[in-house]
Amino acid sequence: MVKFTVTKKDPVTSARTGKLETKHGVFETPVFMPVGTNATVKGLWQEQLKELGARIILGNAFHLYLKPGLEVIRSFGGLHSFMNWNNSILTDSGGFQVFSLKDKKVLDEGVLFKSPIDGSKIMMTPELSMEIQMTLGSDIAMAFDECVAPELDRTYAQESVERTTRWAEKCLAYHDRSQALFGIVQGAFYKDLREKSAREITAMDFDGFAVGGLSVGEPFEVTRDILEFTTKLLPEDKPRYLMGIGTPDMIIMAVENGIDMFDCVLPTRMGRHGTALTWSGKINLKAARHKFSKEPIDPECNCKVCRSYSKGYIYHLFSRDELLGKMMLSYHNVHFLLDFTDRLRNAIREERFLEFKELCTRKQLIKNDTGVNVSEG
Amino acid sequence: MVKFTVTKKDPVTSARTGKLETKHGVFETPVFMPVGTNATVKGLWQEQLKELGARIILGNAFHLYLKPGLEVIRSFGGLHSFMNWNNSILTDSGGFQVFSLKDKKVLDEGVLFKSPIDGSKIMMTPELSMEIQMTLGSDIAMAFDECVAPELDRTYAQESVERTTRWAEKCLAYHDRSQALFGIVQGAFYKDLREKSAREITAMDFDGFAVGGLSVGEPFEVTRDILEFTTKLLPEDKPRYLMGIGTPDMIIMAVENGIDMFDCVLPTRMGRHGTALTWSGKINLKAARHKFSKEPIDPECNCKVCRSYSKGYIYHLFSRDELLGKMMLSYHNVHFLLDFTDRLRNAIREERFLEFKELCTRKQLIKNDTGVNVSEG
Ligand SMILES: [Zn+2]
Ligand SMILES: [Zn+2]
Repeated sequence: MVKFTVTKKDPVTSARTGKLETKHGVFETPVFMPVGTNATVKGLWQEQLKELGARIILGNAFHLYLKPGLEVIRSFGGLHSFMNWNNSILTDSGGFQVFSLKDKKVLDEGVLFKSPIDGSKIMMTPELSMEIQMTLGSDIAMAFDECVAPELDRTYAQESVERTTRWAEKCLAYHDRSQALFGIVQGAFYKDLREKSAREITAMDFDGFAVGGLSVGEPFEVTRDILEFTTKLLPEDKPRYLMGIGTPDMIIMAVENGIDMFDCVLPTRMGRHGTALTWSGKINLKAARHKFSKEPIDPECNCKVCRSYSKGYIYHLFSRDELLGKMMLSYHNVHFLLDFTDRLRNAIREERFLEFKELCTRKQLIKNDTGVNVSEG
Repeated sequence: MVKFTVTKKDPVTSARTGKLETKHGVFETPVFMPVGTNATVKGLWQEQLKELGARIILGNAFHLYLKPGLEVIRSFGGLHSFMNWNNSILTDSGGFQVFSLKDKKVLDEGVLFKSPIDGSKIMMTPELSMEIQMTLGSDIAMAFDECVAPELDRTYAQESVERTTRWAEKCLAYHDRSQALFGIVQGAFYKDLREKSAREITAMDFDGFAVGGLSVGEPFEVTRDILEFTTKLLPEDKPRYLMGIGTPDMIIMAVENGIDMFDCVLPTRMGRHGTALTWSGKINLKAARHKFSKEPIDPECNCKVCRSYSKGYIYHLFSRDELLGKMMLSYHNVHFLLDFTDRLRNAIREERFLEFKELCTRKQLIKNDTGVNVSEG
């Protein structure tokens, strides 16, 4: 259900470009996927996402199962028509969200938890996750995996890898392949467990592979080490997805290690809270120093916010808690990451990936601070 | 600083169409002016206002004086360039806002009040109001008037009319005529006071006239009676503005009595709270009955929300408190009122104003419920 072709390999690193074809179009990788948890990328119109060049966005099986619920989605004929989005959609399996809940019970058949909406008991199973994602009708579905909390020990991590493999088998058995299905490699920070998980998951008939359980609070060096180790165990000819990252430093690092896809809520979340991503680092637009500034957020950005509005005006909007401030920064930030990924792709294509990385380091976009894997709660 | 031409008069009622030319363009009247209290029409991009056909919006002298303040506005060269809006702007004088404050002291030279932002004492005078509006550089400024609370007695209302006249003289004396300046007729619900105020205010060299102090909670019949009485006292060849109204029934009534301009925060405020204005009355998009609806908000509306999104989707956005729900309903509601005013203008032009009124009555857009004059707080 997806067709993936590697179009260029960096001669030095594992960075690569590719083409990914789904039922809803073809796009190039590496690709940044804005997150639309509740069938909306927060603060942006769908037509603005198109205008920004977003070719694939994320939907969330867990949140959409709770609201509006499968009955509504089914009656609308899927998520694309429900939200009026005819480019591609990837849905996550709900694993990360379920495992982020405090009050839950992990059983062999699935995870028992209380609905954060009405407190009712819900049992999320591999089968239910597949059912939800098939109903959503996304282009790419994700297997239901266990994302282990970083504080849990090796014994638990090993059991969890085994469970994730069993669940992956159940997902494949239940899934009707009306959409692509990606497997997820787990294994916490243990290389032997990563190897075991990668061997077991990649042996199955998945259309692509994600590296899960990273960027959950561990130091940057650990993320890099485990990612580098893990991606080498993934097949070359299938797309590779690193879940929940979206800062320039993490993107560069991920792409350097052969990652093709990534997603993050940060651009819109930071935007709503007054922070802009720019080619010279982050800017807090709530800071009074911008009050008189007639400059755009980022002189290197050509988005419609930077072309027509000043930092002073946006500072004012935030000082009055006006919606338009949140809307403009969300727009700019998503533009920044899509533009960043465009330039990154061009660099790989033109065999100057390391030069691009070096440029980002000079511009202090790469600070090796840990991006934390964040999910819209 | 404005040029006004009456282009058509309804043969039966006082309804009329006109052309109003400002420094920033020409537009037709009757005109609905969306309200941009804090230098933003809440929830809408400036480019969306243009796309919607808004030719003139409101700014608020009181709010903009408090934030961002005159120093900022001055350094940006005025409100147009501060907010990147190159169509027309009308600013209100701050009168309505100052008189809406609980803790204030009305003196002959102005009104003493505490800043709602930092509690500091501020004295708003006719001269300061002119200074603010000249700095904002709006196309049309309003004289600083006293808007009497409806519970105050006749003696107070009379004093207030006299004060409003003295303040109008002070406004004219201070104002540099770099922008048009409209006078405001007061007089509460006393016809003789309305007559006195109209006689005194229209005797002065204003570019247009507003009817103030109406739609402050009184019954619809009283509004209509006083408005009908007052507009007949205004010169034919100058634009007439009824402040703070924006529901179909009030607009029809105002235009029937010769009003050319009106503004209201209701379309965006109601939009943020989940209510849509439609050609079949108001709809509450938070109501669960819309959950499965694939219908647009209003089948008679051709705005981009109604063309592409369902009530079910918008219900979902409100159920998750998503920004996009507020954004979409604000957009649709402003579109509705601009479209309503377009159709109203065409009806006058084609000598079928009463037919249009009758149509609105049949569609239950006219219910004679009192529109309350609301200001963004
Ligand atoms: Zn920008
Ligand atoms: Zn509409």
